Amino acid sequence: MSPVDIVRAFIDAWNANDMERVVSFLHEDVFYHNVPVEPLRGKAAVARYLQDAGPWDSVDWQLLAIAATGSTVLTERIDAFVVRGQPISLPLMGAFEIEDGKIKAWRDYFDMQMYVRQMPPTAQG
Amino acid sequence: MSPVDIVRAFIDAWNANDMERVVSFLHEDVFYHNVPVEPLRGKAAVARYLQDAGPWDSVDWQLLAIAATGSTVLTERIDAFVVRGQPISLPLMGAFEIEDGKIKAWRDYFDMQMYVRQMPPTAQG
Repeated sequence: MSPVDIVRAFIDAWNANDMERVVSFLHEDVFYHNVPVEPLRGKAAVARYLQDAGPWDSVDWQLLAIAATGSTVLTERIDAFVVRGQPISLPLMGAFEIEDGKIKAWRDYFDMQMYVRQMPPTAQG
Repeated sequence: MSPVDIVRAFIDAWNANDMERVVSFLHEDVFYHNVPVEPLRGKAAVARYLQDAGPWDSVDWQLLAIAATGSTVLTERIDAFVVRGQPISLPLMGAFEIEDGKIKAWRDYFDMQMYVRQMPPTAQG
């Protein structure tokens, strides 16, 4: 699988709302950065984070564009979720670095306030 | 020039802090969206916006990655500026759509608070 194919399959796993499959694409030493907040390091840490963030009632990521340079894959997306009945739709771009067929780095760039404004009231803390 | 070459030359114009050259890359009907805020439409509107936003003491955009799919170019960047003596450094990704050798669409994705926190106090009002 090419780097683009791997990222497409990763997005398919998200859209199947299959977190076990999502996590299987991550390198053991993955660096995961939602750029407005602190990054996470390691597959186990990311798996825990995803477990805490979910479960999602449904996931619908729209891939607007995808292009690769070497083993780096750049994406433009609209990540839509339903969380506890609340729909969230977030326009963003993400960069993925592939190593040994796995996602070694994943950086998503978005506006945190666009996300927070859509969260269910009970989760806004 | 390929779409990637055009975006590279556009970034070079930014790094030369040459706004006349920057604007020359824009299509008359450009759609310019700093995604956290309202988009602008048309070269004249973008030129006015850039005139109001500047002048910059210096500009240093670092291009971390660039890749194209057809006429769409995706970038990962760190856009650094100095504005009224204040350094600002913003990690972001941007998508560019090229038409007739010009930038027809430009969408930058970033966290607005990461930007606002770095602005000179007099400009935060």
